[in-house]
Amino acid sequence: MIKVAINGYGTIGKRVADAVAIQKDMEIIGVSKTKPSSEAFIAVRKGYPLYIADISRRDTFEKEGIPVAGSVDEMLKIADVVVDATPGGIGETNKAAYEKAGVKAIWQGGEKHELAGFSFNSHANYTDAIGRQFVRVVSCNTTGLCRVIKAMDDAFGVIKVRAVMVRRGADPHVVKKGPIDAVVLDPPTIPSHHGPDVNTVLPHINIVTMAMIVPTTQMHMHAITMELKKEVPREKVLEIMKNHNRIGLVAKNTAIKSTAELKEYVMDMDRPRSDLWENGVFEASVNTVGNELFFFQAIHQEADVVIENVDAIRAMMGDIKDSLTSIRMTNEAMKFTAL
Amino acid sequence: MIKVAINGYGTIGKRVADAVAIQKDMEIIGVSKTKPSSEAFIAVRKGYPLYIADISRRDTFEKEGIPVAGSVDEMLKIADVVVDATPGGIGETNKAAYEKAGVKAIWQGGEKHELAGFSFNSHANYTDAIGRQFVRVVSCNTTGLCRVIKAMDDAFGVIKVRAVMVRRGADPHVVKKGPIDAVVLDPPTIPSHHGPDVNTVLPHINIVTMAMIVPTTQMHMHAITMELKKEVPREKVLEIMKNHNRIGLVAKNTAIKSTAELKEYVMDMDRPRSDLWENGVFEASVNTVGNELFFFQAIHQEADVVIENVDAIRAMMGDIKDSLTSIRMTNEAMKFTAL
Amino acid sequence: MIKVAINGYGTIGKRVADAVAIQKDMEIIGVSKTKPSSEAFIAVRKGYPLYIADISRRDTFEKEGIPVAGSVDEMLKIADVVVDATPGGIGETNKAAYEKAGVKAIWQGGEKHELAGFSFNSHANYTDAIGRQFVRVVSCNTTGLCRVIKAMDDAFGVIKVRAVMVRRGADPHVVKKGPIDAVVLDPPTIPSHHGPDVNTVLPHINIVTMAMIVPTTQMHMHAITMELKKEVPREKVLEIMKNHNRIGLVAKNTAIKSTAELKEYVMDMDRPRSDLWENGVFEASVNTVGNELFFFQAIHQEADVVIENVDAIRAMMGDIKDSLTSIRMTNEAMKFTAL
Amino acid sequence: MIKVAINGYGTIGKRVADAVAIQKDMEIIGVSKTKPSSEAFIAVRKGYPLYIADISRRDTFEKEGIPVAGSVDEMLKIADVVVDATPGGIGETNKAAYEKAGVKAIWQGGEKHELAGFSFNSHANYTDAIGRQFVRVVSCNTTGLCRVIKAMDDAFGVIKVRAVMVRRGADPHVVKKGPIDAVVLDPPTIPSHHGPDVNTVLPHINIVTMAMIVPTTQMHMHAITMELKKEVPREKVLEIMKNHNRIGLVAKNTAIKSTAELKEYVMDMDRPRSDLWENGVFEASVNTVGNELFFFQAIHQEADVVIENVDAIRAMMGDIKDSLTSIRMTNEAMKFTAL
Repeated sequence: MIKVAINGYGTIGKRVADAVAIQKDMEIIGVSKTKPSSEAFIAVRKGYPLYIADISRRDTFEKEGIPVAGSVDEMLKIADVVVDATPGGIGETNKAAYEKAGVKAIWQGGEKHELAGFSFNSHANYTDAIGRQFVRVVSCNTTGLCRVIKAMDDAFGVIKVRAVMVRRGADPHVVKKGPIDAVVLDPPTIPSHHGPDVNTVLPHINIVTMAMIVPTTQMHMHAITMELKKEVPREKVLEIMKNHNRIGLVAKNTAIKSTAELKEYVMDMDRPRSDLWENGVFEASVNTVGNELFFFQAIHQEADVVIENVDAIRAMMGDIKDSLTSIRMTNEAMKFTAL
Repeated sequence: MIKVAINGYGTIGKRVADAVAIQKDMEIIGVSKTKPSSEAFIAVRKGYPLYIADISRRDTFEKEGIPVAGSVDEMLKIADVVVDATPGGIGETNKAAYEKAGVKAIWQGGEKHELAGFSFNSHANYTDAIGRQFVRVVSCNTTGLCRVIKAMDDAFGVIKVRAVMVRRGADPHVVKKGPIDAVVLDPPTIPSHHGPDVNTVLPHINIVTMAMIVPTTQMHMHAITMELKKEVPREKVLEIMKNHNRIGLVAKNTAIKSTAELKEYVMDMDRPRSDLWENGVFEASVNTVGNELFFFQAIHQEADVVIENVDAIRAMMGDIKDSLTSIRMTNEAMKFTAL
Repeated sequence: MIKVAINGYGTIGKRVADAVAIQKDMEIIGVSKTKPSSEAFIAVRKGYPLYIADISRRDTFEKEGIPVAGSVDEMLKIADVVVDATPGGIGETNKAAYEKAGVKAIWQGGEKHELAGFSFNSHANYTDAIGRQFVRVVSCNTTGLCRVIKAMDDAFGVIKVRAVMVRRGADPHVVKKGPIDAVVLDPPTIPSHHGPDVNTVLPHINIVTMAMIVPTTQMHMHAITMELKKEVPREKVLEIMKNHNRIGLVAKNTAIKSTAELKEYVMDMDRPRSDLWENGVFEASVNTVGNELFFFQAIHQEADVVIENVDAIRAMMGDIKDSLTSIRMTNEAMKFTAL
Repeated sequence: MIKVAINGYGTIGKRVADAVAIQKDMEIIGVSKTKPSSEAFIAVRKGYPLYIADISRRDTFEKEGIPVAGSVDEMLKIADVVVDATPGGIGETNKAAYEKAGVKAIWQGGEKHELAGFSFNSHANYTDAIGRQFVRVVSCNTTGLCRVIKAMDDAFGVIKVRAVMVRRGADPHVVKKGPIDAVVLDPPTIPSHHGPDVNTVLPHINIVTMAMIVPTTQMHMHAITMELKKEVPREKVLEIMKNHNRIGLVAKNTAIKSTAELKEYVMDMDRPRSDLWENGVFEASVNTVGNELFFFQAIHQEADVVIENVDAIRAMMGDIKDSLTSIRMTNEAMKFTAL
């Protein structure tokens, strides 16, 4: 059993914890919080040992009825791998502790590529992660791009990708961030950082990205065009997507044409936290004109990287040598069924 | 086993179906849809027999891979009770069919009181529903008001209730309804219809309500003041709320102070569809000044009436004679745990 | 003086009325409403004679204190040109009346190209509109696309345009339309109708458009890429945009990077109704890579077609033979100053 | 001519500047900014001398083409009154400079009452401000409450006020603040600070307030109930409101029933920046039951205090001894016409 610690039991961390906990070859040995907030109570309800960064604050937690298992340093000592899901930019400050503890560590896409020296995507470079001490799982948007670009590149060869990312303003539970009524260019310059970030995983892809933020919480939406190396019939693209185990085709006959309806559908499927782990490609939007492919895909910002973290753990531990086996193990444990 | 049919497998209907399906004394014998939309696919996934109103449209469903069990009239024949969860105003047009089939029927709060002649709330008037053929479960807002007014009235006596309802503009998956950036008076006159609707359940309560709609999907928020017959310490009110099995106290130490954070908390509790079935009273807001009580409560518009429908079924069938037994059975089947 | 009638004094109609009223060569002889709503009161305040479609409803208006000048048919008799700004799809039903009255008519982009047989954009095809009886001013999004594509095509030659339109869900005062919290593919198929609509004005342009709707009221945002016939330095593009009299460059040093901040800026410039009549191209976003040009532009859905309607009136009347003279006259009357 | 300086040329400051500039007895001698942002360019366009707090940053402004008139300290020397419209909490830190310069100063409602020692509302306590060096104009919500409570108290006597404030999440141009999809209790405790703030102006009023924040930018909405000392017919209340020069009755026959439609109406009236300076009381909502009065009012957060600042300037200078004269002068200069 791989012993996994979650440093930062928040939006991503709590999902990775639950995903790890149901894998046959993994267990959660602890999760961490800095404050006795609502998520600390959830950790207690779920039975995850709770560790805290500043052990001098033990009383603050315990007087709220939250038992503290120890300090984060103590948690690191008993872990094989720590998944760092602290807020973007904080993860970097934890590196020294991970090095000192000699523990393998995974950071999220909010950290820079250089911190880990390796950026991960299950379908693109699983085997390159085998045995590594440090790995960065790329962000939700980059993960969604890598999955579909890699699949199209493998099948047809990709000449150039142009992608416009229409990003959610904040996660559903975040009430202080906006915008309330605006489209915000983020960044205001072109290209956005997403293209270069895809290149940390798929260095040879020619990609230009543009990004903005809109007043929604539910998912990101990508408008993607790809110039391919050959003319491809639409049906061939759909077939590859349908057979991909982390691309979900939103069937035309569901009449779903928005992030909100898609989220409801996944909720009705009884997925935990209504999570869409796969890319949500809208079947009706997929079209080809000559050698150019067009489509829309929804990316659930809280969910798609969760299963990538699980695979990254396996790759780093090195027992499972190929990506497809790990992906299958992960998906099966999640009771992942097609959309 | 009580045989239950759901006429209108939508936002409320699909939740009632799942709630009924896990009750020990009930089973779902069928659900209905008018179109082969996303929810029809969900019904198939869940294994609920799907009936359709217009049987001439059978082919339309079956060519999408949705098997049709028969017409709604056929469904009514094999049901003991039908829960009508069709859109507001449509339910009325189904009454003749229910009378013809001799089936017991429950309507939702979107229909008028006069349609059923009896408006139901589990804590307020369960026994009055015993044996009835027709019952109306009051709307989400009225349900939320009745629960807490009844509890305070039983404990302290209520002189007057003033409530401002800040209502969500649309359910999360509804993308055509607004507003996007406005506060809309709905109705623009005072009082709103909610006060009189409370009186269909609790006729003796003096209540004035004011209502508006705001650009959110997650829950309604009620700002409530009650003049009580005596001065009451805050702690006494909190104790009654804490012990009530359909009022949830949002603990102050969770730091939750919005509908969005509350929804996340319920999601993290692994509730199906992240549903908050109980009133979400914010502990920090509860205050008393003299004989006046103030508090905020969140009402999950998609969820709070679901469990009331389950109790209403039991009351109408008449085997369980008291409300507390039914409420306990319903809550236990739902694995209802305190917030 | 050109006698102009406005059929449909709503979001567009009231703006065209005010723009026409300040042109030296035009006057408003009447505006129409179907209901005695808030905009009817505004027409009265502004002193525009108010005509109504159904003259039998005269009393309904007059008892609210709104004087009625006559029927729409009477208005048509005294007009040289009628600007039809009725809701999309209604304009079509008015054609017979315009033909019967022998009045020139302008429709908006909500109507089909075929209705007028000619689609107008001031910079692209002013002279082709000279003397015509019927003209359609293309929609806000198409107008914004035509302006900038025409300018780039004239300067450098355009090979291919790819545009993603992120559209506002509803105008600011519209409270019933959503979405509240979703990104909606509209249409869910690719390409959207905007590309073909550009081709009604600029038939030779190779363009693919993708469109979605987001929960904002303030403006549309376009993410545009253009393959040009030659490599062009960024500065050259900026110079052309800066010198264009209906493209506004949002200066980088204003730090404006959203529709909301841009709207505030225009408001602070004391523009009537805070209207942005020109394309709002974000200087910081303009970039070229090889022969490909990238940029973001904001399009104020309520405003950009207003000045196109004014030019269309002039073209149809035929006294001003060239577009630049008309554009200059229109802009000067509006006290149009650069952003 | 009263020489007025604006310290903080932002949302409130720019409006006060324009309002002061058109008063016959006042002039703007300077405005201040800390950064060369979009509003600095607006100050230049409007011809207001621009002063900066940190004069060492002069180059930063001037290289963007923004001439700097001098330091804020220099501005204070030539002013009779400075209106401090810096962000909440910053104003406090400027007090020493105002004392040193011996200049009269007005703070906004984001500062504490104690800072100025006197909280102002034109209708409530104009004469008490005569000759004062320091005055605080209460916040937009408190201003809106004071106006209507004072009017009702003068006419009928007020026993108790209960008000629920549904507040906008951010101003229209603010893109970083939320919430996007939530109702946020702010504060989560009851009563909110608004009641005590009303008491800084009207000490004898018994008032309890509850407040929340919703995802809108356009205006606040107040749901108000008042117990009066006598039974009053609705018509009597409407008459008083209609005759009040800072309460606007939103006529029932306009069919306006939302903040968004009201904003559009004010925009169509050609008010600068579409500003609603008066309380927007919805006529259709005004109702009395026994001695209790109910109504909804919209409060434009950016606008209602602007004219109060103008009156406060006059009161402090002491030449105009009574409130009604000042209010009339202010309103006339603004070309204030009834809704």
